[in-house]
Amino acid sequence: MSTLSPGERPLDVTRFDVETATERIAPHVRRTPVLDLEPGALGVPGRLTLKLELHQHTGSFKPRGAFNRILTADIDASGVLAASGGNFGLAVAYAAGRLGHPAEIFVPATSPAVKIDRIRGYGATVHVVDGYYAEAYAACEERAWRTGAAFLHPYDQPAVVAGQGTLARELEEQAPALDTVVVAVGGGGLIGGVAAWYASTTKVVGVEPASCPTLHAALAASEPVDVEVGGLAADALGARRAGAIGFSIAQVHVDRVVLVSDDAIAEARRRLWDDVKVMAEPGAAAPLAALIAGAYVPAPDERVGLVVCGGNADPAGMERVDLRALDDTD
Amino acid sequence: MSTLSPGERPLDVTRFDVETATERIAPHVRRTPVLDLEPGALGVPGRLTLKLELHQHTGSFKPRGAFNRILTADIDASGVLAASGGNFGLAVAYAAGRLGHPAEIFVPATSPAVKIDRIRGYGATVHVVDGYYAEAYAACEERAWRTGAAFLHPYDQPAVVAGQGTLARELEEQAPALDTVVVAVGGGGLIGGVAAWYASTTKVVGVEPASCPTLHAALAASEPVDVEVGGLAADALGARRAGAIGFSIAQVHVDRVVLVSDDAIAEARRRLWDDVKVMAEPGAAAPLAALIAGAYVPAPDERVGLVVCGGNADPAGMERVDLRALDDTD
Repeated sequence: MSTLSPGERPLDVTRFDVETATERIAPHVRRTPVLDLEPGALGVPGRLTLKLELHQHTGSFKPRGAFNRILTADIDASGVLAASGGNFGLAVAYAAGRLGHPAEIFVPATSPAVKIDRIRGYGATVHVVDGYYAEAYAACEERAWRTGAAFLHPYDQPAVVAGQGTLARELEEQAPALDTVVVAVGGGGLIGGVAAWYASTTKVVGVEPASCPTLHAALAASEPVDVEVGGLAADALGARRAGAIGFSIAQVHVDRVVLVSDDAIAEARRRLWDDVKVMAEPGAAAPLAALIAGAYVPAPDERVGLVVCGGNADPAGMERVDLRALDDTD
Repeated sequence: MSTLSPGERPLDVTRFDVETATERIAPHVRRTPVLDLEPGALGVPGRLTLKLELHQHTGSFKPRGAFNRILTADIDASGVLAASGGNFGLAVAYAAGRLGHPAEIFVPATSPAVKIDRIRGYGATVHVVDGYYAEAYAACEERAWRTGAAFLHPYDQPAVVAGQGTLARELEEQAPALDTVVVAVGGGGLIGGVAAWYASTTKVVGVEPASCPTLHAALAASEPVDVEVGGLAADALGARRAGAIGFSIAQVHVDRVVLVSDDAIAEARRRLWDDVKVMAEPGAAAPLAALIAGAYVPAPDERVGLVVCGGNADPAGMERVDLRALDDTD
């Protein structure tokens, strides 16, 4: 007998999916370390645990989902396709290369040359498309129809979301006592996987820049809606619309989504470097920003885990990018 | 009955000293994480494990020894003294502050203002001494005689060496299967503690820049000798003469000390950032440099641990410093 209410549909990703994804991708991803901090570290009361996912292959959590998607897809000689000049593009290029599949990555002409070079460096064919992310995405879709290559979505495919959830399964094993896990949100792939794994046994809190309130707006509207995106972390968190999968999981298993300012993100990034020598990309500093700014205030005894989900930023300073180039984010 | 040969003296630091130091300093230091890498990572055959000690308080391993020394010393109201404008100065200032002791740190006038500010930021009194490190050291010694404050040596006191050895005890617990641990050498405090812990049960290999061959020269001469120091990592590894304690332990329990070029150190630092998003200071990249350059070539099945011992460098580039300011290194 179903436990669903009338009209309710089952979640696309379950704890079981994350479990099987973990076994599937284990030979291909790094088990990233955690760092337990002393009370008061990083200017925040209480004890924090950092999940240092920036040390993952290609510098972000994205290979988890990319490997799980590729390993569960039916892939012929035409290989895989993705549209992204950012972390997902790097991850797909890397994963396809390791698994011996050709990869074509569609990037907008506005992408920084250094990222295009890194994607090529993993052996992928890069198609530079005139225009912005929307044009690159359209060209990628058109190519998928024509060649039959497997299309990988950055955050709205079940296998991608389940793959990202393996981060939470690993974290639970490393830090079983956490009461709460705080995670940055772009399109909802990572938080969807994390919340699917914890399934409300541990509180999951999402953080978005106020300038990219994608999931916050979706939860308020009870459905994914288009939002304007911009600001310091838009290169990683600037999805215009939440994915349907992450959204539906968040409705059930995410405690809340809070918003932070760019100033708080910049301050959190500085604290992570000054106090812990962790060089996070701006989006990956959003969870700490929520605590520093008081957007999320833990209870005195609450054990909080912060996911530092990527390190792909120029360590010399804050990169300013053309935001319209970017919509492939998480 | 003693197991020592006639004329041989017991080592100043034993496995037991490291064990008791571990319990003593546990409330005050971070248990830094390890990262197991896949075969071939960082451009090196075989499997590496990184000990990410750059995430320690103040950005280096130095608080381990500082806490152990302060916690075992007889300290009156005049507090503690050290001469250092570098990692040891930061560590002593931090540890004394946490333990409620006044600290006076003597730094040469040639020290970068940013480091002096950080030492002051931990609550220490900073005495800026005209001249170079030798002048700061002399002023510190003079002050110690006059006030009775406890003098902390950066690498040549038993409690300091035993404290640094706690890194190895922690690493053995985290990565018990390692065959070899590779560690950078300045004055010999860290490698002395590490080798005292492993006591030849695990191979310990030291790495020095060819431009700072302090322990290498001491082992060749069968006694500590003065060397010229310079180059990219001299701010952390540029001790002019090996400490007597570390030297005597190294004679017994260090497999070998190899030398690397500044180019190899710079390349290793780039690889750590590009492939693993670890932002090491130059000295902390020396162990990887030894493997990249072939100065140490592990056997095909050898499991090698690399200690990434600090992260106090400007992430934007390579700092050039006045080397005569620096002689308080490890």
